[in-house]
Amino acid sequence: MTLAYGVFNEGGRARVGARDGDRLLDLAALAAAGRLDAVPDAERVFSAAALNPLMALGPDAWRACHQRARELLADEAPTVPFESAEALMPFEVADYVDFYSSLHHATNVGLMFRPDQEPLLPNWRRLPVGYHGRAGTVVPSGTPVVRPRGQRWVPGDEAPSYGPSLALDIELEAGFVVGQPSELGEPVPIERALDHLFGMVLVNDWSARDVQAWEYRPLGPFLAKSFATSVSRWVVPLEELEDLRVPNEPQEPEPLPYLREEPWAYDIPLEVTLNGDVIARSNTRHLYWSVAQQLAHLTCNGASLRTGDLLATGTISGPEREQRGCLLELSWNGQEPIELASGGTRAYLEDGDEIVLSGDPLHEVVGRIEPARG
Amino acid sequence: MTLAYGVFNEGGRARVGARDGDRLLDLAALAAAGRLDAVPDAERVFSAAALNPLMALGPDAWRACHQRARELLADEAPTVPFESAEALMPFEVADYVDFYSSLHHATNVGLMFRPDQEPLLPNWRRLPVGYHGRAGTVVPSGTPVVRPRGQRWVPGDEAPSYGPSLALDIELEAGFVVGQPSELGEPVPIERALDHLFGMVLVNDWSARDVQAWEYRPLGPFLAKSFATSVSRWVVPLEELEDLRVPNEPQEPEPLPYLREEPWAYDIPLEVTLNGDVIARSNTRHLYWSVAQQLAHLTCNGASLRTGDLLATGTISGPEREQRGCLLELSWNGQEPIELASGGTRAYLEDGDEIVLSGDPLHEVVGRIEPARG
Repeated sequence: MTLAYGVFNEGGRARVGARDGDRLLDLAALAAAGRLDAVPDAERVFSAAALNPLMALGPDAWRACHQRARELLADEAPTVPFESAEALMPFEVADYVDFYSSLHHATNVGLMFRPDQEPLLPNWRRLPVGYHGRAGTVVPSGTPVVRPRGQRWVPGDEAPSYGPSLALDIELEAGFVVGQPSELGEPVPIERALDHLFGMVLVNDWSARDVQAWEYRPLGPFLAKSFATSVSRWVVPLEELEDLRVPNEPQEPEPLPYLREEPWAYDIPLEVTLNGDVIARSNTRHLYWSVAQQLAHLTCNGASLRTGDLLATGTISGPEREQRGCLLELSWNGQEPIELASGGTRAYLEDGDEIVLSGDPLHEVVGRIEPARG
Repeated sequence: MTLAYGVFNEGGRARVGARDGDRLLDLAALAAAGRLDAVPDAERVFSAAALNPLMALGPDAWRACHQRARELLADEAPTVPFESAEALMPFEVADYVDFYSSLHHATNVGLMFRPDQEPLLPNWRRLPVGYHGRAGTVVPSGTPVVRPRGQRWVPGDEAPSYGPSLALDIELEAGFVVGQPSELGEPVPIERALDHLFGMVLVNDWSARDVQAWEYRPLGPFLAKSFATSVSRWVVPLEELEDLRVPNEPQEPEPLPYLREEPWAYDIPLEVTLNGDVIARSNTRHLYWSVAQQLAHLTCNGASLRTGDLLATGTISGPEREQRGCLLELSWNGQEPIELASGGTRAYLEDGDEIVLSGDPLHEVVGRIEPARG
């Protein structure tokens, strides 16, 4: 069992909770009862409608909080029945950055879209490629996803048109939430990167591939991804994931000093189901760049971090076909639709499809596709 | 003279102000004195440390507010001496989106970077190309800009390296601030776009061209622009700019229906000075896509707007050489350094350089380059 934090609503009031499996603590009530005095300013922090005040306290306070929450969970402190507690969006997103840190994903995309060139662009092994996404449309697990409309050029048509995406996709990702902010103008050294990260979630970076293919040059993905990005409702603190850190293969070429560290990754098995059928199994071990490298790169120009920044990994694909983390790769851009165990095939998502991302001890991300509106 | 809103600090307390030239009203004090009762919830709205509560009220309340502020300014209501009022960042940025809406800018960039191809990519005349920038590093005019370090491949070197940008640039832009939010899943029709926009600022989207050239494929600009983006400290409400709307040339090809309107632009002359020498003169008339088209496109996939979203135009360049809005174009990527009237030349910015963007009735954006740190 693993500690996780979230925000839940019971009787119309939002407050911070901690859970371990199906035991859920009301930290606001426990703080009011004086049982969380190890955490600075506990009453304010735990009666907030987001984890941001807790996350802003920094790593010393987080350690104290985790320790106390574990004691209270072990101690048979009063718990809240899950039936009456609705989990909400756990944190307010400041900036959302999405990286592109899986070698197999980047290679597959290159093979599909630039078949006459080296699949990996020359910068890929030198720095963690990334871009900014839309923070305002990050939604909690379970939020229905309306099939987006958008401008795309349908093969065979004489001109681009505006209509429902015909290539709606998932992206299996993990995300890291910034707790402790940093100063503008001051890069965070790689060895201090993890001090700024509060915890980890799963992320489904929904993508309209037809919109993306048409819009993305030269400034990158925009509306193809900005309609919705789903995250877990419970955030697992990084301290809980220490034992899952494993050595990773050496990076070649060796990164520049500001990105240099002993190669490592989290060993967290991941699974994607579509209407209950497993369609992909991957693992966070398949990431080439670590989150410490991502954070050091993100701030190497002096950009500041804010509490609530979300750093996602990009699609996590492994070397095998069944380890590919999106339908673009699984169906090879629709040319090889996948067979579903329960019958039928999929190139891209259909209306009504329900996708679940899971990866114990992280918390799941669920999303169901609703038809385009209008 | 033109009404503008901002936030200022006097005696340690931030509050909302309205100004016309050098007459500055303390709207918090006037609300407390019952002189702004035309505005809903005036005491709360004007004692905030950001314009966001005012902006969230929507267009009916804005109209009432502008009307009342003009009366109070004309009426010789008590004003605050500028010497004792420090203007702050005027609004909290939700998401920051930067477009690429000047035909001449996009054409020049294409000519430089893809000399063997059509300078405009095929999507450019079909949709307002844009991308998300970093909201957390938008800073108010006057904030010093530290020369960013970053990873770039210096010509002649065997490998990329990490160090101070050798091609630090400006971008002359305008920006529009969202007031009224919109619902997730509900595109804003183009004819309602302006109802969501509170006001306009100037924007300097500082850019490290060497970092950009190395990092930007395939996901777009990232660290090349995320170290700082400067905006005016005073926001001019769109209502004040109505008389500056002028017809624009027909767009060819005709845009899709969701982007279709009578072509128009704001006629606002713009100027860039470097250490006091004018280095560029442009005009918001040179924008191909209107802000209404940008906003309709941004939401056409169902992405929601939040109060505080900033929509910038991208570099505003005209057809003539002296109308180019960035040094990349003015010096043709450093190959033709510009001559400064007061002596010396510039390919890109040097430490100590001070850049001022101005464009009456918008408020200026000033920034001075400090040497790289560390």
